[in-house]
Amino acid sequence: MHEHYMELAMKLASSARGQTSPNPLVGAVIVKNNEIVGMGAHLKAGEWHAERHALQMAGEKAKDAVMYVTLEPCSHYGRTPPCADAVIAAGIKEVYVAMADPNPKVAGAGISKLRNAGISVHVGLLQEKAAALNEIFFYHLQSQKPYVTLKSATSLDGKIATYRGESQWITGEAARLDAHKLRHEHDGILVGINTVLADDPALTTRLAGGGRHPIRIILDRQLRTPLQTKVVADNAASTWIVTLASAAEEKKQALRKAGVKVIEFTDKIDISRLLTFLGENGISSLLVEGGGTINDAFLRAGEFQQVIVYLAPKIIGGEKAPGSFGGAGIAGLAEAPGLVLESMETLDDDVKLVYKKGVDESCLPELLKKKGRLCK
Amino acid sequence: MHEHYMELAMKLASSARGQTSPNPLVGAVIVKNNEIVGMGAHLKAGEWHAERHALQMAGEKAKDAVMYVTLEPCSHYGRTPPCADAVIAAGIKEVYVAMADPNPKVAGAGISKLRNAGISVHVGLLQEKAAALNEIFFYHLQSQKPYVTLKSATSLDGKIATYRGESQWITGEAARLDAHKLRHEHDGILVGINTVLADDPALTTRLAGGGRHPIRIILDRQLRTPLQTKVVADNAASTWIVTLASAAEEKKQALRKAGVKVIEFTDKIDISRLLTFLGENGISSLLVEGGGTINDAFLRAGEFQQVIVYLAPKIIGGEKAPGSFGGAGIAGLAEAPGLVLESMETLDDDVKLVYKKGVDESCLPELLKKKGRLCK
Repeated sequence: MHEHYMELAMKLASSARGQTSPNPLVGAVIVKNNEIVGMGAHLKAGEWHAERHALQMAGEKAKDAVMYVTLEPCSHYGRTPPCADAVIAAGIKEVYVAMADPNPKVAGAGISKLRNAGISVHVGLLQEKAAALNEIFFYHLQSQKPYVTLKSATSLDGKIATYRGESQWITGEAARLDAHKLRHEHDGILVGINTVLADDPALTTRLAGGGRHPIRIILDRQLRTPLQTKVVADNAASTWIVTLASAAEEKKQALRKAGVKVIEFTDKIDISRLLTFLGENGISSLLVEGGGTINDAFLRAGEFQQVIVYLAPKIIGGEKAPGSFGGAGIAGLAEAPGLVLESMETLDDDVKLVYKKGVDESCLPELLKKKGRLCK
Repeated sequence: MHEHYMELAMKLASSARGQTSPNPLVGAVIVKNNEIVGMGAHLKAGEWHAERHALQMAGEKAKDAVMYVTLEPCSHYGRTPPCADAVIAAGIKEVYVAMADPNPKVAGAGISKLRNAGISVHVGLLQEKAAALNEIFFYHLQSQKPYVTLKSATSLDGKIATYRGESQWITGEAARLDAHKLRHEHDGILVGINTVLADDPALTTRLAGGGRHPIRIILDRQLRTPLQTKVVADNAASTWIVTLASAAEEKKQALRKAGVKVIEFTDKIDISRLLTFLGENGISSLLVEGGGTINDAFLRAGEFQQVIVYLAPKIIGGEKAPGSFGGAGIAGLAEAPGLVLESMETLDDDVKLVYKKGVDESCLPELLKKKGRLCK
């Protein structure tokens, strides 16, 4: 039953996907005499950790009980007091930890604290699943950059519009709804100025019952974004516009006055430097929604971890019809980044394909190497 | 057990896929006292039909036995004597027929003949499966054109080569092997002159243990096909070159001398007229292997029944990199032909997607309407 309880803890953890950033997803289950007496998940940064919720539910029953937790309990004072102390105080006698905290500031200290208090601690139960659960968090922790997902919705032949520019809608409702779930789960969403000018998208999360809006990030070297465009004028979510220092000062001021954060690069917008900036400013996951020029820039910079393609049962054709990846593209097939198919499913009439980067052994700590795929 | 035996008959039938053209796939099973006493399949045009093989295997045991056959037994003298007569002569007492022959020359006559001889005949067991089994045959019978499959092997973003023209190989070995099985199953394979000039393909079926070569059909308006190119010089399979009457007489003669069948159109190569020509000349199934200009021509003519895409886990990008469907493309999304996903599978690292045209009720006999998808 150990795996059963740990899997339950993971389900609890993943139920909060999209709302814990910059914190990881964590779940905890407390079992006594073959009965679950407490369950909890971390729901929001600054609020209780999973262990505390589970301990509160268990109350007195936590004494001499077993806890299953998906990540090493913290031992340091952050925005909440250390969970290890609470676990000890509640009288838990045994703890199963799926994985140690890979954050070097924390790693192992929570486990040691529990062991020093006489608690029996087992580390590594369903470790790979636990690593996968927080793939985005760990990537960000390690690289200081956001985990980048390139998303496109295309015809069978890779087109995102007809040669006349008609693009609404290529995919069906179920696929578009799924894409809104992606927005809900990401801290930031990025498009190029061409997409803003062509479609005036809101880039918000529109799901029945709401959804969290990602920060809207527009790459716009010459500050061509009109002031009346939705991302500037609708006040629905934060908007950051990335531009060059050489762009018109007047426009910068007007945008700032409209509430937009204007980010200036001196010479050119370098994707890698941009990602470092975003990572340092709280964006741990970035959804890139193209168009083709932007997607190509991320492709050729090698700066992405995941590719999601929604394929509609349509053929558009046309040499001049825009594809999901435009720009210059790669010259030789050997330069194509290795991708691994992660999942394949149908959404009504469309097919959703999820790919992750292949393993790059050089940039990963031991644990994550097993899971692979986290680095570029 | 009726369905079990009929399914077995269908398996026997489909085992000969690729070798019975222009005849349909047919299988037969004979059962007596709950034991299979005979099995047969039609293997090759001009040779015995499935019923005869099964009757031969059953020998004396055919008397008072039950026959399961996937298509109505023939009642007319073709290249072999009528099967209905043989069934009657063998003393079969009951026959399950999956579907009546949709060929107006035959329809119902075989069944009547059996019934007039006192045999109990049941029609319609697994009828839809039987129709699907011979989808290609029935399409050809009805339209007099070949059943057209558009096949492409692309990157995730729909490219068939990099901007430099590198295209070998985008997909992996398993997908390429599968594509050779497609060749084995088709009567003809069609490419444009650009593909011949760029890749000098053999267009033969290269499978371990051999395979049937389709007739190679090249669209080449100006007869630019070099005499030393594989499709002309290798003598591995028949080659037909489709050109305009205005092409150089000298070149026509040289090609004919090399064994090529030169087919001339007066003004332009009209896809629909070409298909009628091919259908009347024994090509019941045509595999179109592009490239982009040819695929686009079939797309915009609406002349295809099936689309097969092998998707490699690669992104190539590039506005100038050729896509699977080039040419002009469609102008508005409403013009995109409705496709229905038929199957989705992985072949090593690649994804194979099979789509069929949506139902066009207007052009189908009742039976085929249920199965749908046969018309353009």
